[in-house]
Amino acid sequence: MIARYFRPLATDPGAFDLNDDAAAIRPSGDDIVVTTDAIVEGVHFLPDDPPDTIARKALRVNLSDLAAKGAVPAGFVLTLALRNVDDAWLKPFAAALGEDARQFSCPLLGGDTVSTPGPLMISITAFGRVPSGKMVHRSGAKPGDRVVVTGTIGDAALGLAVLKGGKVHAALSDAAARDLLIGRYRVPQPRTALAEIVREYASAAMDVSDGLAGDLTKLCGVSGVSAVIDLESIPLSDVARDLLSRGIAEIETLIVGGDDYEILCTVADDRVEEFVQAAKRVGVGLSSIGMVVAGIAVPKFLDRQGREIALKRRAYSHF
Amino acid sequence: MIARYFRPLATDPGAFDLNDDAAAIRPSGDDIVVTTDAIVEGVHFLPDDPPDTIARKALRVNLSDLAAKGAVPAGFVLTLALRNVDDAWLKPFAAALGEDARQFSCPLLGGDTVSTPGPLMISITAFGRVPSGKMVHRSGAKPGDRVVVTGTIGDAALGLAVLKGGKVHAALSDAAARDLLIGRYRVPQPRTALAEIVREYASAAMDVSDGLAGDLTKLCGVSGVSAVIDLESIPLSDVARDLLSRGIAEIETLIVGGDDYEILCTVADDRVEEFVQAAKRVGVGLSSIGMVVAGIAVPKFLDRQGREIALKRRAYSHF
Repeated sequence: MIARYFRPLATDPGAFDLNDDAAAIRPSGDDIVVTTDAIVEGVHFLPDDPPDTIARKALRVNLSDLAAKGAVPAGFVLTLALRNVDDAWLKPFAAALGEDARQFSCPLLGGDTVSTPGPLMISITAFGRVPSGKMVHRSGAKPGDRVVVTGTIGDAALGLAVLKGGKVHAALSDAAARDLLIGRYRVPQPRTALAEIVREYASAAMDVSDGLAGDLTKLCGVSGVSAVIDLESIPLSDVARDLLSRGIAEIETLIVGGDDYEILCTVADDRVEEFVQAAKRVGVGLSSIGMVVAGIAVPKFLDRQGREIALKRRAYSHF
Repeated sequence: MIARYFRPLATDPGAFDLNDDAAAIRPSGDDIVVTTDAIVEGVHFLPDDPPDTIARKALRVNLSDLAAKGAVPAGFVLTLALRNVDDAWLKPFAAALGEDARQFSCPLLGGDTVSTPGPLMISITAFGRVPSGKMVHRSGAKPGDRVVVTGTIGDAALGLAVLKGGKVHAALSDAAARDLLIGRYRVPQPRTALAEIVREYASAAMDVSDGLAGDLTKLCGVSGVSAVIDLESIPLSDVARDLLSRGIAEIETLIVGGDDYEILCTVADDRVEEFVQAAKRVGVGLSSIGMVVAGIAVPKFLDRQGREIALKRRAYSHF
């Protein structure tokens, strides 16, 4: 199984063609940034999600972390817990994983395959490089900084709602709109192209995986600051905006839903414009959504009348 | 949960007190050796194994890999898939993990905690350092080299047999003997003390996790050689030897059983004595069990009459 499906992905010399018990990462003077994220069937993906999208999600949630830390991908190790060896599943899984490994220059370095009587689980530890000491942290946001996010927020949460059926699914007669949202849930777009620009401009950064509201709360907490967010400034896709205007979706669903895998960061006010231009040159849209303020209160989300909205919950919680 | 149980284990500055999405490993000019091993409830450990032994096993199976590669531990990341947050389980789990992290100088760098409806799973990726290019490989064994193992073989397989009840359990009236075997199954002893000596002497090395017979077959396969093993030379504990002599256990159980986490290596014939002495100085016993020979046949295991024994299977297989 390893020889057939995974050896072709192990293109780095330090992977030793997966013929060894370990891989070796060569020193380069850079820090090695390490992140690990696991996805579990029935929790992070649905049992009938296609194997190629599961593979991409497993790797991309880690690539998203690397990008937010300003790190350029260097490789990953894969732990695969399977109920059985199903070639019809493994073949497209490995093929898609290999495509992403090439696309993001992040080769497979090693792994472990174990049997489980339970749900499928894919755990990836990914490595990136940053110049020594230059990893971008969650801490570092300062009062007066702007709060900035990439892309659009909430599409993945709506995609999950579509897959679950119900009113969001019923409200979308357009298959293309449904597919767009489902695609955002199943296959995140890691902002790898932005890594070096985040390193240059961001005072603090993280990726949005558990919902914008909760992740901003974490970033502010570690930075010892608060924030005020203008809900109207949060970037939404056309389909999300349409569902919102028709009362099918609520803004709360979009900002606490999770799975966005966009970058949330803070940037000194006088550098925002330059940051936006630099991101534009690598094809990434940025939106300034609010301001970091002094204090330890949880971030406030203000509606168009400037009234704070009450959030029933802030983030996805596993327990 | 992370703050209470796991932050105290994150003593490395590169762990950023687990307040970030990623860790950073500082460059040192050494190669970073990376290994990953997962353990699954009901597969690698039993549902009623104590949480402290589960924690130690999860880390130690990885430390064992590092030692066999000649690498000195540098840290690890932990992925924990839990059904629920059970303080009575987590507290001893984290405490034991912390003790081992200190004992083996291998601090927690980061991790991910996810919920699962299925069996408990602990996936660890561990990092070690070797001088650039000096990782010890599975390949490298040469005809004429001696085959050497640390410690004793087969005790863990017998420990599992004790835990499962049956004839091995019934044959051991001595609780201390049962506990010794169970301990070998539940809590491996990684040969970390031997890492630098393995690097100095071994032409090829790996740890014995899936059974001596199967792992030697893998090492020989990658090295393009064969081997002849003298069964009488395989080091056994007194209790294993007793069970063997009474016909309760078979030699095949011991050499294909797995979970030994001893180091299997090959060493040039004229350096074996020096290797044994160096290992003795760090408290590790070595046994020479056979010879590497030319050819591509699977390794032969010879009994005291010099007859090859037939093995029904060579190693634990997950699938």
